[in-house]
Amino acid sequence: MGKINFTKNADGTVPAIVQEYLTGRILMLAYVNEEAWVKTLESGKAHYWSRSRKKLWLKGESSGNVQRIKEIMVDCDEDTLIYVVEQDGGAACHKGYHSCFYRHVVDDAFVVVEDRVFDPKDVYK
Amino acid sequence: MGKINFTKNADGTVPAIVQEYLTGRILMLAYVNEEAWVKTLESGKAHYWSRSRKKLWLKGESSGNVQRIKEIMVDCDEDTLIYVVEQDGGAACHKGYHSCFYRHVVDDAFVVVEDRVFDPKDVYK
Repeated sequence: MGKINFTKNADGTVPAIVQEYLTGRILMLAYVNEEAWVKTLESGKAHYWSRSRKKLWLKGESSGNVQRIKEIMVDCDEDTLIYVVEQDGGAACHKGYHSCFYRHVVDDAFVVVEDRVFDPKDVYK
Repeated sequence: MGKINFTKNADGTVPAIVQEYLTGRILMLAYVNEEAWVKTLESGKAHYWSRSRKKLWLKGESSGNVQRIKEIMVDCDEDTLIYVVEQDGGAACHKGYHSCFYRHVVDDAFVVVEDRVFDPKDVYK
């Protein structure tokens, strides 16, 4: 039986890298505590612990952009996850981009390297 | 000028997802504080903050498996990085696997889904 090590962070979370199933693209990173982990396994939909709002968070509960779990990977230290998902709505980022990683670091600047998929004003009302 | 937000974790770190340049594969996740960030930018080699050893860590300092930075991405909240790297030695994981994520979570079990690239006993002496 495999066990995730939720003891490394004081708030009982581990980071989950979210990777898109068909493209392999890294969409975002969020945090999972034991409650979110259990809900994710039960529902097949990605749940996280919101560190800012200090509450369980079903990704897509506001935007409708749910993440459907296809596979889960665990690392050598059992303290980091990859959620391989199908991303509803074609965008993971609350700023309207496909991926939260829409900017390159170039010298001292952050350079946007893709277009928005949606306007956040249309989605978060 | 872009600024990484190093204030979210008490130890001044942000997570860095490490992605292989040619394959797009996620190799590992490690933590970067301001010192590691500056060293990474200066040297072009991935540096991290070891949370267990509480010291700056040049990836590959023991194994020789240095990670050469090709690109860096930053997320919407400026508190997570992707280091896109060329991985010397063909393996990122100290357990001898190409990726630290060499196991799938299948029901209650962790299932190894790839072969070792090296035997750790031959590399860490």
